[in-house]
Amino acid sequence: MSDESPVEGRALTSTGAKLRTAAEYRASLRDGRRIFYRGAPVEDVTEHPALRVAVDHAALDFELAEDERYRALAVAPYGYSRYFSIPRSSEDLLARCALIEAATREGRTLVVLVKEIGTDALFALQRLAPRLGEPYASRIRAFHEHCRDSDLAMAVAQTDAKGDRALGPSEQPNADAYVRVVDRREDGIVVRGAKIHTSVSVNANELLVLPTRELDEGEGEYAVAFAIPPNTDGVTLVASPYLPAAGRDAAEHPLSAGRKMVETVTLFEDVFVPWERVFLCGEAKLAGELARGFVEFHRFTAVSYKLPLVDALVGAGLLAARVNGLEKARHVRDKLAWLAAYATTLRGLTHHAAERCRIVDGLAVPDTLLVNVAKLHFAQGLHTAIGHVQDIAGGLLVTYPAVEDLDHPDYGPALGRYLAGAHGVGGRERVRVMNLISDLTTGDYGGYQAVLAIHAEGSIEAEKLTILAHYPRDDALAYARWLGGLDGGHRSPQSH
Amino acid sequence: MSDESPVEGRALTSTGAKLRTAAEYRASLRDGRRIFYRGAPVEDVTEHPALRVAVDHAALDFELAEDERYRALAVAPYGYSRYFSIPRSSEDLLARCALIEAATREGRTLVVLVKEIGTDALFALQRLAPRLGEPYASRIRAFHEHCRDSDLAMAVAQTDAKGDRALGPSEQPNADAYVRVVDRREDGIVVRGAKIHTSVSVNANELLVLPTRELDEGEGEYAVAFAIPPNTDGVTLVASPYLPAAGRDAAEHPLSAGRKMVETVTLFEDVFVPWERVFLCGEAKLAGELARGFVEFHRFTAVSYKLPLVDALVGAGLLAARVNGLEKARHVRDKLAWLAAYATTLRGLTHHAAERCRIVDGLAVPDTLLVNVAKLHFAQGLHTAIGHVQDIAGGLLVTYPAVEDLDHPDYGPALGRYLAGAHGVGGRERVRVMNLISDLTTGDYGGYQAVLAIHAEGSIEAEKLTILAHYPRDDALAYARWLGGLDGGHRSPQSH
Amino acid sequence: MSDESPVEGRALTSTGAKLRTAAEYRASLRDGRRIFYRGAPVEDVTEHPALRVAVDHAALDFELAEDERYRALAVAPYGYSRYFSIPRSSEDLLARCALIEAATREGRTLVVLVKEIGTDALFALQRLAPRLGEPYASRIRAFHEHCRDSDLAMAVAQTDAKGDRALGPSEQPNADAYVRVVDRREDGIVVRGAKIHTSVSVNANELLVLPTRELDEGEGEYAVAFAIPPNTDGVTLVASPYLPAAGRDAAEHPLSAGRKMVETVTLFEDVFVPWERVFLCGEAKLAGELARGFVEFHRFTAVSYKLPLVDALVGAGLLAARVNGLEKARHVRDKLAWLAAYATTLRGLTHHAAERCRIVDGLAVPDTLLVNVAKLHFAQGLHTAIGHVQDIAGGLLVTYPAVEDLDHPDYGPALGRYLAGAHGVGGRERVRVMNLISDLTTGDYGGYQAVLAIHAEGSIEAEKLTILAHYPRDDALAYARWLGGLDGGHRSPQSH
Amino acid sequence: MSDESPVEGRALTSTGAKLRTAAEYRASLRDGRRIFYRGAPVEDVTEHPALRVAVDHAALDFELAEDERYRALAVAPYGYSRYFSIPRSSEDLLARCALIEAATREGRTLVVLVKEIGTDALFALQRLAPRLGEPYASRIRAFHEHCRDSDLAMAVAQTDAKGDRALGPSEQPNADAYVRVVDRREDGIVVRGAKIHTSVSVNANELLVLPTRELDEGEGEYAVAFAIPPNTDGVTLVASPYLPAAGRDAAEHPLSAGRKMVETVTLFEDVFVPWERVFLCGEAKLAGELARGFVEFHRFTAVSYKLPLVDALVGAGLLAARVNGLEKARHVRDKLAWLAAYATTLRGLTHHAAERCRIVDGLAVPDTLLVNVAKLHFAQGLHTAIGHVQDIAGGLLVTYPAVEDLDHPDYGPALGRYLAGAHGVGGRERVRVMNLISDLTTGDYGGYQAVLAIHAEGSIEAEKLTILAHYPRDDALAYARWLGGLDGGHRSPQSH
Repeated sequence: MSDESPVEGRALTSTGAKLRTAAEYRASLRDGRRIFYRGAPVEDVTEHPALRVAVDHAALDFELAEDERYRALAVAPYGYSRYFSIPRSSEDLLARCALIEAATREGRTLVVLVKEIGTDALFALQRLAPRLGEPYASRIRAFHEHCRDSDLAMAVAQTDAKGDRALGPSEQPNADAYVRVVDRREDGIVVRGAKIHTSVSVNANELLVLPTRELDEGEGEYAVAFAIPPNTDGVTLVASPYLPAAGRDAAEHPLSAGRKMVETVTLFEDVFVPWERVFLCGEAKLAGELARGFVEFHRFTAVSYKLPLVDALVGAGLLAARVNGLEKARHVRDKLAWLAAYATTLRGLTHHAAERCRIVDGLAVPDTLLVNVAKLHFAQGLHTAIGHVQDIAGGLLVTYPAVEDLDHPDYGPALGRYLAGAHGVGGRERVRVMNLISDLTTGDYGGYQAVLAIHAEGSIEAEKLTILAHYPRDDALAYARWLGGLDGGHRSPQSH
Repeated sequence: MSDESPVEGRALTSTGAKLRTAAEYRASLRDGRRIFYRGAPVEDVTEHPALRVAVDHAALDFELAEDERYRALAVAPYGYSRYFSIPRSSEDLLARCALIEAATREGRTLVVLVKEIGTDALFALQRLAPRLGEPYASRIRAFHEHCRDSDLAMAVAQTDAKGDRALGPSEQPNADAYVRVVDRREDGIVVRGAKIHTSVSVNANELLVLPTRELDEGEGEYAVAFAIPPNTDGVTLVASPYLPAAGRDAAEHPLSAGRKMVETVTLFEDVFVPWERVFLCGEAKLAGELARGFVEFHRFTAVSYKLPLVDALVGAGLLAARVNGLEKARHVRDKLAWLAAYATTLRGLTHHAAERCRIVDGLAVPDTLLVNVAKLHFAQGLHTAIGHVQDIAGGLLVTYPAVEDLDHPDYGPALGRYLAGAHGVGGRERVRVMNLISDLTTGDYGGYQAVLAIHAEGSIEAEKLTILAHYPRDDALAYARWLGGLDGGHRSPQSH
Repeated sequence: MSDESPVEGRALTSTGAKLRTAAEYRASLRDGRRIFYRGAPVEDVTEHPALRVAVDHAALDFELAEDERYRALAVAPYGYSRYFSIPRSSEDLLARCALIEAATREGRTLVVLVKEIGTDALFALQRLAPRLGEPYASRIRAFHEHCRDSDLAMAVAQTDAKGDRALGPSEQPNADAYVRVVDRREDGIVVRGAKIHTSVSVNANELLVLPTRELDEGEGEYAVAFAIPPNTDGVTLVASPYLPAAGRDAAEHPLSAGRKMVETVTLFEDVFVPWERVFLCGEAKLAGELARGFVEFHRFTAVSYKLPLVDALVGAGLLAARVNGLEKARHVRDKLAWLAAYATTLRGLTHHAAERCRIVDGLAVPDTLLVNVAKLHFAQGLHTAIGHVQDIAGGLLVTYPAVEDLDHPDYGPALGRYLAGAHGVGGRERVRVMNLISDLTTGDYGGYQAVLAIHAEGSIEAEKLTILAHYPRDDALAYARWLGGLDGGHRSPQSH
Repeated sequence: MSDESPVEGRALTSTGAKLRTAAEYRASLRDGRRIFYRGAPVEDVTEHPALRVAVDHAALDFELAEDERYRALAVAPYGYSRYFSIPRSSEDLLARCALIEAATREGRTLVVLVKEIGTDALFALQRLAPRLGEPYASRIRAFHEHCRDSDLAMAVAQTDAKGDRALGPSEQPNADAYVRVVDRREDGIVVRGAKIHTSVSVNANELLVLPTRELDEGEGEYAVAFAIPPNTDGVTLVASPYLPAAGRDAAEHPLSAGRKMVETVTLFEDVFVPWERVFLCGEAKLAGELARGFVEFHRFTAVSYKLPLVDALVGAGLLAARVNGLEKARHVRDKLAWLAAYATTLRGLTHHAAERCRIVDGLAVPDTLLVNVAKLHFAQGLHTAIGHVQDIAGGLLVTYPAVEDLDHPDYGPALGRYLAGAHGVGGRERVRVMNLISDLTTGDYGGYQAVLAIHAEGSIEAEKLTILAHYPRDDALAYARWLGGLDGGHRSPQSH
């Protein structure tokens, strides 16, 4: 787990590297950033009733580094957070996967993301650095060191609003459908536009902006990548009201009452970015490569952080079967076996992708084909998984009584008795199991996970294209031709 | 559309039949019934912030009868609500289907149910009446006339808490896992236990109680069916807090802010039922027949009321494709074709089931095989349908800005401009489309529909068993045997 | 079931209409047509070892008209074959469906087709006649009367070789990738090219040729439809060697030993067609309409003739379950329920499409949307159905001993005893059940049906496009817009 | 790749170990074994027109060991065939997997099996040896050395006829539904009954017999495992006539004309087995363990030998897309991506199962959960894969002209020209591609593979049960309980 730069071969120095406490992290967010929630300005994100839950959730990352159980995993050899550690080997990738999985597991199936996504972007930038050349390469290295040594939380703003999806950026009737450079000055550039789906931006220290797609020659103004603090002038973070955590009962919503990630529409209204923070500016033909490069690393993060979710689905199915006395019902066993195979396939392909990584310029890149197959497997199965767990659980998922009912001195005891399940499970426990599964699958948290499955880290269609592009097609074609007698040869053609 | 009783051939008289206004309906619910919501007593369900939405929704049924557009459909020839009209022909069933569809359509994909489910139970009781004999048959007829002539709203309490699903009622460690008769008196019976999933009980005028399953010989105490007003002594309605409508913004939740159905856990604590309201008591071997008979009618209601939901899913998919400029994207067209086929199959099988009804003792019974196949088709496809619509819509489903943001004087206009979609659709409209689809598929309303798909009106597994039981297996076997040469014959065996 | 022409309102006269005997039909095929089988000329198709089975199979149509059991179905009121009867109502369509189903059922799941496909083409031509105008309309009428009154067997050659599927006819490097008109003379036209997949051409009396796709303005030479006898100069029929029936043991291959349909590559090498047999020539913009019109009728034929196949699959599954003693195994019941639902959905949608037909110019057209949904349902489920039946049957499908083994005096009795199944079924019967299912699903007959499911009567993709085109999209969109609050209105928009 | 015995820690000696040539192998099969094919005795299996193809196919294993390209893979360090090498590590398992894959690849997607299956049985016996104790353990070791040092071909007879599947062996009306011991003598035992699905028995040197299932206490007579040469008195091999290779044109059937595996019903009519060849006799409670143990190894073999088949399907899909000019058609790309993901998942899980092996008594056992998930993935997807490839290929799969037609001096050239495809592919090549895919998917070879997918190496249902049994359920349950707040703890429970 050495830490040599893939760009120039020099070791990233780690002088001054430190880990921040959760308190330091929280304090760093009170920096005057411009956030709105439901049309109202947010003075202090760490205190805001709706958004503070997201801050608390993100703080988990800083807490784990102090937790004896996780320290070895969470802290890299030189004393900084392992997230910033550039993977050099399968072992490094497996450790990164394990760290992401552990944090998400502790986060009750919700990814923490404040370091995951940013380092995915950093790795992609590093990987592209040899082709970007100077001065980009040095800026990227310096920014990486800055984030690492200051133990920063980072958001990545990639997805543009896109307007008419059938048209490219330069064809849009609305020129601002994609973020673009509107001015180049001596000291930096000025950008305008909006990014959507920006996760953790309200509680990050840096906001990395990347292009979202391939660009044509003449679309250089849209080829821009940079990083700025969220409190930069002209940046407005409009937080989505979806999935509000405030006011939820922790028993009724055991996941979403205390865990939260916030997305923003991120407005850039003539925002100035100094040159040292600009990583791409005008190189249209590299925009797609950077976009894809980021997504490739990020999909490995994605399949890593999906693991606790699929574990939770299997566990929820098993638990519901037990509470209902359905463990031996044949159709339930069939669904449980499906869930177990679903989870095992995802975990197996994810780990195998790390084991079969390529080392490119010293950087360990998880096997692209396997990562995308794993992600597609997850995405295409989640709705079925949800349906299976709901099937085993039963209608109480959406008709359960409230905690206050079970606590009622008058009818609460009777209610608990009537609702008792199998194996001596009381009504209260049965209801809590229903609450867990309801939170996981029928409410807005379940819906959030379902939509993420389809759209986050690149769409299902993008995954299919990537799979087709990376599959060893020539080998498959050659074998088929030999089988069909179209090409001669006593023995089959060799694979490459 | 004559209305002769299937039991004795006499016409159900309709003297005094009247339709109630929505106001009369609301007034009738202020009767001292014992309802709790989150542990607190509900004084007046028509004024309660959480439950009044359900009352308003149910009032739709009474309003439609006064609406010129729907009157012909909603009112039967003798001047009472068509729901109470016993179907005698395919045409009657198609009209009933159309009425249920229309009411649900106006109810924004949420079934009204206050007459649908009760009449399903009444039809099932009427159908069983010849076998139940007197005095049950007369009581059933009288109760039907009472409900019809008073234009009553009805709930049906069928599903028991069930405890350990691997055990029958009499094997449960908890004797009260199923509702049962604890005393027989000269003037009536006393029942104890709890039913779960009781829809519309908080806003019904009558509560019909039916057995939930087959019973063995010695389980006669569980073989009980009866009807009582919800304000009967000993009845407690514990309303589920799931899917609260109160406080929702109508733009952000266009379905669930104004539409609501409430389920209760319904406690029967030594409730007295007079004999004239008892329809089954001790006839263990008829319990399963009554349970299935109700479900058979109710599944036809179910496939009828699912039609607006599948229409909404197709429409939402089309709308999202348009807003995003994805109408010509091949994978989107593929998903839209899937959705269209899904909806068409459901509607086709439902109507065909009405057209191929059997007339049993004068009662038109929709084709059981087709109804169950339709229901299974719906249930097994809904999660896929939801996934497809989410896929076309995009991540804004769960990251949209609030209405208040779009209205903000400062950044609202820019936000609207940046989020503009294809075909000149502005950001505001794009967000509303996302809100519709989010309400329909990612939040608790979508989850409610998803769980209903699997569990309401009998489970998926129950539907499979019914399909297998009603399929003409002997014909299929005979044909296969002839094909395989196991049975002779120059020509194939005739079907029956 | 009147028989007025949709074109001009005059009754098709039926003077001289007669039904041919199977012997007359056979005799009519000895007309010097140029057929090759595996490179060798076929002198007499009725005696050729490989092809005679196809003639015998087709003769079934003529036999049924003489069979008391089927006469009412097979013979139209005026004394000719019902296939030629133009459908005027739902009842006519249901009768046509029943006749196709009956013939296929007697044909052991293999469609007879010698009248089905030709009349589908005739109906499509009749439907287009008002737009084609004269002299086409009169020619079409005359040709219809000719076929009907002479009780002819007809083949339809539609699918072109197509070359590079990404290119249209006029863009092909190979000018002959699509059949085209190479000369127009005073007395007729000369055509060149090849059609593939031409079913029953070796044993038909007339060969109808139709365009296969939409054509652009400048592609008039490819817009050609006509009819000629197969023995016309320049026509060569190259019969496919796939699925040879000769030499098969009837016990081991109970379907394919005695039932056969032959496809040809049909070469037109400068074939002269007199004008009275030309139905389209140069009208590029009508080519697609005719192609689609034929396919629409033909898909209704298709879903009708698939019914015995799905019945056979359900029956085979039931039979295998019984023989193996697996009737109560839960996973087997699950698969049987799937099969039953699959068959019921296909039959239900097919019949419903007839019931919901449109009457266009007096011609009853089955509901296009329902027909395509039915066809897609069949096509997308067949591979699963095959898998389920194979699963229930077991490995003996491909490891069974031969009939000769069971008959062997030495070890035959022991073999039969060892292989005995459940319910007293002996080894011989168990093996015959395996043979039936093997023939139906694992050998070339099963493969033939599987490929037909995907490609015959238009591809799966074509069905999806048709579904999307015929779905009431505006209604769905309007409903979704109303639900989302994008359009106002107290009540939902009316459907059309 | 050391070779120490898992039983006693002593090295298996390899004195005298030698590799046989293909000619020696063939000669060894002329030993008077009693084979019947279609009721006729087979004098010499190496010359029999139907069965010799199977011998030639099996000879491939011996040829590969002499082929420079494969020698390193095929030959173990001590000079014997690697198949016999007991795996001690992940590397050993990966090498075994690679060897099986290579042989099957050269075998044109048909597994060779003559050493694979036998060594799976030997490994299972070795693994059980510590529990079987002496004298079984020594006999097993001796038999392993014998097979290895003589480079023998081995068949395994496991599946019993089973009669009524709802009943156990001792409950069958037919006592001979399962192979059983009918006499114990001083020098050995006498067995009676029949095994079905015995692959490669006609061309093996040893026949290993294993129990097929769990047995109850009183079913000791069915608990029997042993090995005998196929020419032992009382053994009759009744070869299945399914999938005859004789007479097939190599161009039209590029796989099945030259590649063949034969299954027999294997009759044991009072066959004497000397004690030194008896490995289980009466230990009812170990029968299931041995049966499962064999299947576990054999499923790893299975997923290894499926790899060329899925490669061929992907390649065939790509080739068909190319020939048809459909490479850019969106629905075709979708199907190709599905195929690529299908193949990648299988290969990934298979290799990962080797990498995550357990070392039990020195024996490397591939991860059971992963192997079963891989196998289930393969089995549940194959019918879909076949459907996709057929869809891309088109109807010519079942309507192609013969090779003799393309060669015909008269119309052959025109035929070739008309059938030309995209990218300059001539009609002849297009037809050969169709022939390949037809052989692979629509004929009896494709059907053979499809049935094997479902039934060979244990059924789909058995795989589901194994998955559920081996999934870390306690961890999943504990995590779900913690998530639902049923168990306390600040951090999530540790996995095991």
